[in-house]
Amino acid sequence: MKLAIDAMGGDNAPEAIVEGVIRAAKEFDDLSFVLVGDKEKLEPRVGSQERIEILHTTEKIEGTDAPVQAVRRKKQASMVLAVQQVREKRCAAAISAGNTGALMASGLFGVGRIKGIDRPALAPTLPTVDANRGFLFLDVGANAECRPENLLQYAMMGSIYAEKVWHRKNPKIGLLNIGTEPGKGNDLTKKAFQLLSEAPLNFIGNVESRELLQGAADVVVADGFSGNLVLKSIEGTAMSLMSLLKETLSGSLYTKVLTGLMYGKLKSLKTRMDYSLYGGALLFGLSAPVIKVHGAAKCEAVYTAIKQAKALVEEDIVGTIESTVLDADHTWLHNDAK
Amino acid sequence: MKLAIDAMGGDNAPEAIVEGVIRAAKEFDDLSFVLVGDKEKLEPRVGSQERIEILHTTEKIEGTDAPVQAVRRKKQASMVLAVQQVREKRCAAAISAGNTGALMASGLFGVGRIKGIDRPALAPTLPTVDANRGFLFLDVGANAECRPENLLQYAMMGSIYAEKVWHRKNPKIGLLNIGTEPGKGNDLTKKAFQLLSEAPLNFIGNVESRELLQGAADVVVADGFSGNLVLKSIEGTAMSLMSLLKETLSGSLYTKVLTGLMYGKLKSLKTRMDYSLYGGALLFGLSAPVIKVHGAAKCEAVYTAIKQAKALVEEDIVGTIESTVLDADHTWLHNDAK
Repeated sequence: MKLAIDAMGGDNAPEAIVEGVIRAAKEFDDLSFVLVGDKEKLEPRVGSQERIEILHTTEKIEGTDAPVQAVRRKKQASMVLAVQQVREKRCAAAISAGNTGALMASGLFGVGRIKGIDRPALAPTLPTVDANRGFLFLDVGANAECRPENLLQYAMMGSIYAEKVWHRKNPKIGLLNIGTEPGKGNDLTKKAFQLLSEAPLNFIGNVESRELLQGAADVVVADGFSGNLVLKSIEGTAMSLMSLLKETLSGSLYTKVLTGLMYGKLKSLKTRMDYSLYGGALLFGLSAPVIKVHGAAKCEAVYTAIKQAKALVEEDIVGTIESTVLDADHTWLHNDAK
Repeated sequence: MKLAIDAMGGDNAPEAIVEGVIRAAKEFDDLSFVLVGDKEKLEPRVGSQERIEILHTTEKIEGTDAPVQAVRRKKQASMVLAVQQVREKRCAAAISAGNTGALMASGLFGVGRIKGIDRPALAPTLPTVDANRGFLFLDVGANAECRPENLLQYAMMGSIYAEKVWHRKNPKIGLLNIGTEPGKGNDLTKKAFQLLSEAPLNFIGNVESRELLQGAADVVVADGFSGNLVLKSIEGTAMSLMSLLKETLSGSLYTKVLTGLMYGKLKSLKTRMDYSLYGGALLFGLSAPVIKVHGAAKCEAVYTAIKQAKALVEEDIVGTIESTVLDADHTWLHNDAK
C-alpha cells in the first residue's frame, strides 16, 4: 500500500513529518510512501529509505491562506499534489498537517465526495478518561450550517468506522445536545434526534458536552459550528488547567523538588489526554481516505495517522460507506426518502 | 435592603442556604432576608437572627420537574414565593439554587421582562486563569434559538454589568465564534457580528472557545445552545482532568505522601477554577434581579450570590438597562430600527 504525504504542512514540517514516515516505513514492510515537498530539504532527511520516494515541489499552502483560493491558485502546492496522487490512484490515501480548510478543498476538488454523502465532515478522535478508548467526534468544523440529514450521514459513517477500525460491536452513537431528554435542544437537534431514532444504528440519544470525556458514546455527531466550539473548549480548558498546574507546582523550590519527584506520574497524566496518540482527523465523506494531522503534530502523531490511514484502506471504510449509502435497504440515508 | 431567598432549592438545601444567609447577615448590617421554606426545618438553623424572617411553605419545585408546568401548578413553591416577594416590592432581589428552568419561568411570570428586552439570558461568571478576573458569559441556555438582535441585547446588558458591578472601563465584548476573522461562523454569528460592530460598545470581534479561560473578553455573548455546550464542555473537561489528576497522584504510597506535602498548592489550584466564588448566574433581562445559584452550591456560593445581588441593586443595573433601551440615542437596540 502506498500513501501520499504532504511533507510541507504544519508547524514542524518537514522534520516531524519525515520522522513519522521513516518510523512507519521501518515498522510496516507493506507500506511505501510518496513524500511531497522540497527535494533539497527532504533528501538529506530521508536518506536511503527504499520505500520512500520524493515528489518534488517548492510551492506550499500557508496556514493563513484562504482555503479555496489557495487550492485554486497554488496548483503545485505539496498538499494539492499529495491529494492528486490519490485521485490518480497512485496512492491509497493522503495525509497532511497543513491548513485544514485547504485540505478539505483539495479533497473536494481532487477526489470528490462519496455519492450520496452531501457534506464531508472533519472527524478527530478525542481522548476519554478511560485510557485507550476515545470517541469519534464529527463534524468539528467542515460545515458551520447543517441539516438533520447531514447529522444522520455523519452517524452512519462514524458507526462504520468505530465498528471496522476500532472493532467495537454496535458502536454507541450520541447526538451532541444541551440536555439528555428527547425534545431538548434547537430545531436542528430536535429533527436530527427523530431521524437518528428511526435509523438502524445504536443511537443512545442526546449526550451533553459535559459527559464527552467520560466516554458517553463511541461516536458523537454535531453540526460543524457546535462541534468546533466544543472541541476548542475542551482543548482550551485542558491547556489552561495544565498551565495552571505547572505554575502551581513550580512556585517554590520546595514544591519544585516534590514535583520533580512526581515527574513520571504527571507526564503520564499529560500523555493520557494527548489526542495526537489517537491519530489525525478524518475528512469523512470524501471518496478516498484523507487525513488531517494536527498542525502542531510531532513524529508520534504523524506515525499514528499513518497507521490510521493503513486501517482505513485495509478495512475499505470508503467502500463500505459507499455501499451502505447505495444499499436499497438503507433508503433512510437518502434525503429524497425524507 | 431586603432579599428573598429560596431556602429549599439545590442539593444542599436548606443547610448551605441558611449558612450562606447567616454569614451575609453578620457581615452586612444593611441587609435583611426573607427565607422561604419549611419553618420546622429552618427555625432551628436560623436561631435568633434579627434580620432573617421566615416565610413558611412546604411546597417545593424539584430539579426533575418540567419548569413551566411546575411553576403553574406549584403556586406555593418556595421558589415561586421568593420571586413573588420581589414582584410585590417587599424584596429587592431573589436568589435560588433550584431548578434553573423553573426559576426562569417564575421570573418571567412573576416579575416579567425589561421593556425592550426580548429574551432574558442566563449569565454566569466564569473563571479565567488570571485569578479574580473572570468573564460574564451569556446566554448559557435560557434560549436555544436566538436572533442576532438577542445577542446585541445580551452584549448591552453584559457591558453595563461589567462596567457598573466590576468597575471595568469600556468592557471588552466578544462574540463566541469558530474563528476570529470577521465573516467566520454560521448565519447567526455573521449577522450578530455586523450588529455588534455598529453598536456603541467596545466590541472586540469574534472570540474562540479555546481562548475563553485566558480572559479574551470581559463579556462573551452566544446563543443559548452554543453557550450551554461550551459551558458544559469547560465544566466537563475541568472535572475530568481534576479526577485524572487525583487518580494519578494517589497511585502509590510514595506519590500519596508527596501529594500530601503539596496539598495546599493543589487546593489553591482548585480554588482558582472554582466559579462558585464568582457568584451565581444572573437571569439577565428580567425587570428585577433574580440570581440562580449552582445546584451544588455550598455556603460560600450562596454568600457570594448575596453580595452579587446587593451590588446589582445598589448599582441599579436593571434601571440602567431599562433606560439604555428606552434612550432615544440607543435606537440601535430596538428591533424596529433594523
